[in-house]
Amino acid sequence: MTQFMNNKEDIVTEAIDGVIAVSGGKLARLDGYPHIRVVLRNDWDKSKVALVSGGGSGHEPAHAGFVGEGMLTAAVCGDVFASPSVDAVLAGILAVTGPAGCLLIVKNYTGDRLNFGLAAERARAFGLDVSMVVVDDDVALPDLPQARGVAGTLFVHKIAGALAARGVKLDEITRRVEKVIAGTKTIGMSLDTCTVPGSPKESRIPKGMAELGLGIHGEAGVEQIQYSDARQAMDAVAAKLGKHMGEGQHVALLNNLGGASVLEMAILANELANSSIAGKLKWIIGPAAMVTSLDMRGFSVSVYPADVEDLEALSHPTPLSAWPGISEITPVTILNLPDGLAPIKPLPSEHAETRAFLTKCCEILIKSESDLNALDAKSGDGDTGSTLAGAARALIATMDTLPLADHTQLYRALGQELSQTMGGSSGVLLAIFFAAAGDAASSGLSMTGALKAGLVRMQEIGGAKLGDRTMVDALYPALEALEDNLHLAAKAARAGADHTATLTKANAGRATYINAQQLEGHTDPGAEAVARLFEHLQG
Amino acid sequence: MTQFMNNKEDIVTEAIDGVIAVSGGKLARLDGYPHIRVVLRNDWDKSKVALVSGGGSGHEPAHAGFVGEGMLTAAVCGDVFASPSVDAVLAGILAVTGPAGCLLIVKNYTGDRLNFGLAAERARAFGLDVSMVVVDDDVALPDLPQARGVAGTLFVHKIAGALAARGVKLDEITRRVEKVIAGTKTIGMSLDTCTVPGSPKESRIPKGMAELGLGIHGEAGVEQIQYSDARQAMDAVAAKLGKHMGEGQHVALLNNLGGASVLEMAILANELANSSIAGKLKWIIGPAAMVTSLDMRGFSVSVYPADVEDLEALSHPTPLSAWPGISEITPVTILNLPDGLAPIKPLPSEHAETRAFLTKCCEILIKSESDLNALDAKSGDGDTGSTLAGAARALIATMDTLPLADHTQLYRALGQELSQTMGGSSGVLLAIFFAAAGDAASSGLSMTGALKAGLVRMQEIGGAKLGDRTMVDALYPALEALEDNLHLAAKAARAGADHTATLTKANAGRATYINAQQLEGHTDPGAEAVARLFEHLQG
Repeated sequence: MTQFMNNKEDIVTEAIDGVIAVSGGKLARLDGYPHIRVVLRNDWDKSKVALVSGGGSGHEPAHAGFVGEGMLTAAVCGDVFASPSVDAVLAGILAVTGPAGCLLIVKNYTGDRLNFGLAAERARAFGLDVSMVVVDDDVALPDLPQARGVAGTLFVHKIAGALAARGVKLDEITRRVEKVIAGTKTIGMSLDTCTVPGSPKESRIPKGMAELGLGIHGEAGVEQIQYSDARQAMDAVAAKLGKHMGEGQHVALLNNLGGASVLEMAILANELANSSIAGKLKWIIGPAAMVTSLDMRGFSVSVYPADVEDLEALSHPTPLSAWPGISEITPVTILNLPDGLAPIKPLPSEHAETRAFLTKCCEILIKSESDLNALDAKSGDGDTGSTLAGAARALIATMDTLPLADHTQLYRALGQELSQTMGGSSGVLLAIFFAAAGDAASSGLSMTGALKAGLVRMQEIGGAKLGDRTMVDALYPALEALEDNLHLAAKAARAGADHTATLTKANAGRATYINAQQLEGHTDPGAEAVARLFEHLQG
Repeated sequence: MTQFMNNKEDIVTEAIDGVIAVSGGKLARLDGYPHIRVVLRNDWDKSKVALVSGGGSGHEPAHAGFVGEGMLTAAVCGDVFASPSVDAVLAGILAVTGPAGCLLIVKNYTGDRLNFGLAAERARAFGLDVSMVVVDDDVALPDLPQARGVAGTLFVHKIAGALAARGVKLDEITRRVEKVIAGTKTIGMSLDTCTVPGSPKESRIPKGMAELGLGIHGEAGVEQIQYSDARQAMDAVAAKLGKHMGEGQHVALLNNLGGASVLEMAILANELANSSIAGKLKWIIGPAAMVTSLDMRGFSVSVYPADVEDLEALSHPTPLSAWPGISEITPVTILNLPDGLAPIKPLPSEHAETRAFLTKCCEILIKSESDLNALDAKSGDGDTGSTLAGAARALIATMDTLPLADHTQLYRALGQELSQTMGGSSGVLLAIFFAAAGDAASSGLSMTGALKAGLVRMQEIGGAKLGDRTMVDALYPALEALEDNLHLAAKAARAGADHTATLTKANAGRATYINAQQLEGHTDPGAEAVARLFEHLQG
């Protein structure tokens, strides 16, 4: 079993119970499992026209997901891809229909037409006012007199739902949605077949091909076409639809057939907004999974030339999360980049002592290159020495451009330099260290205090704590001791670095992935670099 | 290419443009493609705290889909499964941050921490008030000190979004969401790996196995477990989460990792509502695709013990369709079946003439059985004769129970009988024919008028028009002529039936699927049955 399901027989009832359980008490179902599977509003008082739809399951969220305020009153659910029985439909009608009557919204499949049709007759024998519309929006099969009903059905649900909510009478709703049905055109495309629960997946579509003009029951598309990319797929769909679109501004419904990712649907939305029919499309519903074909990696586009009244109905609020709302399609607004992305270049300034100090630091790191590389080879990929030495060489080369006389600016400048010249996580972390130290210095902290603040921020971002076998194990005790003097700081750094050789579990950084035996007895190269810096600076 | 995409390099920018194009003008992006991919609110005036999130792409609708009123202010999008650059994050911060400051919401991955962290430092150097929280909700890896950030991030987006919308200050928002992060726990499960765009799909999970405790970047789950069904899958997830849940009522977030169908997610929602942790779950967000891993057929459950303030924030309205809202989890309400499903049994009554007439009709059909079967074998499966004769025999057997003296009731009773004794579409259609005729008779129409009304309804539901090569081709002209006399009706029926032999294209019924050569010269068996009825009745 490669799907999230239990017994095949229980799929539909369990899914319905799931939908009801998370509806916040707004939905209920009729008794009568397993044959009668009717989802209905729990707050329905029969004071307005009832809207009943349904059909085979496997098209979730259609139709149970569209039962609620402003949309359907009840959904009658058949087995996967099979029409519900006449009794089930009749139960649905009888449960929700009051004096205002009931509209049945049926997709144009023989089973649904017959079962809903006969149920309507039976309900009429009880004196109920029942009308029925049949949605036939699919334009894939131009020669067949009976086009299928597919995702365009959603236009009907929403418009009828808004009208019914406003108290419009059954005759008027029926008239209005018959106009909607006449104007709605849909076509679908898929890259793969769907997986019918409990059946092996049919591999009908060869790699590199797509099916155009498919139904929503796993039946084969009208044609297989070569598939190259999303643009060509949408072009093919738009070309088919374009032939059926008249004048006027249309609303599009971009439907995920179930298995396309949200990312893919966004790309398809972009293609639709730039397609050959884009000039005729003013509004869009979706992209979203609305009328699916189980897990089919495909989509459908429905179009309808909405008038002002239709738009009002399509925009009428509904609390149902399955309804994605309607939006205007607009050109993409592109805002200018904010100022400040180019790094602030501080004014260079000279300060002999600082220059000498920095240069000495760099030279210490450059001299340690091969030792640190060798150490890193024990627990990493052997490049810590080269990374640090490279950054040190670059810093020496850029010394003349630094604000050496202004320590606050200098910290920030060092951060900026390191983020550009030193690769990997450690470059970013040292950049954060110096940038935060600069911040702290600018708010009046001492040099040591500023460096400590930098370390706090670096630990926050990098996540390394003391004992995690990183440079922090040397840097932290060194900075603590630095308030006293450099000699004590160097001793503390060395002790901290040596301690890392006893730590057999790295909790941060890349050594996380190395096992204990490989780590034992080897000093962490970052901590070693810090210790060497302090030791040589005091000498 | 088995996905809807164009060039691999353009996936993220095209998807962003798609999201913006269908946002109704509410979203914009910064200039700076392809490196700077920042989606932001188009109506943002910097008067409140800005919320910036983001990270690698491939998790749609996260995070661009959550940019808007009541949630994020901007999303910074990296490549698929890769962190955005420091410059991109900085651009996002600078574009939306005003005097109220900015909160960065970061998922706990090293790249994101570092790049967002450094960007925060740079933004602070401009004097901006920036705070950053790191979401680490994944409980799959109990021994790693740095848990990953996954779908629980949505709790943070929503709660921070509601607070920011209400004008709460940055410090307070940061404090509140740090509490949310500390309390949020998530675990995921998948039946299949995801398909990284442009790469061949990795087949890591053998058939019959599932991965438990996976990240959202296609990395392997912590363990592979035997998979039997949805119940066991949710049990495993609930068991893991249960260990981390304290006292109090929790809110659950049921997230589709991208490739599970809406049907499957509803089944999983049902399992969650009945799981071992159900007693601690009071509210639910979803099921919905919120933080996906491309097209992964998997799900995750996040839990958080929400207090009154949290709930208020989670319920705060947002117009974003990607946010499914929060609902109380409730027991399933089951309503009684409506009265009237059991067919109304009319009182039997005797009427010798009607009994004789009906019996004769039945005998005609019984006598025609083999002829009609033979005819049907030319264009169908050769059972029309048996179907009609079977129904006729059943009708004779039930004659004593019929309301023979009341024609209105009799029509309805015939419809009821035929729907039970005659299989297939034709049984339903004849049931509709007689039920509608009964309706018409009850409103005062003549017998012929009532039968005509029945035919109209049958055609409406069945979709067959004159010339479509069905029984309508004989029945329609017969009923038209019946106002005059039975003899003319019989002639008309015969002419109509014979005409069907010249119709080489069936537009309704099963013969639709038969080609012209097979149809030519053969009378439609339904039409033939009608003709024989009328011919023998006049004789």
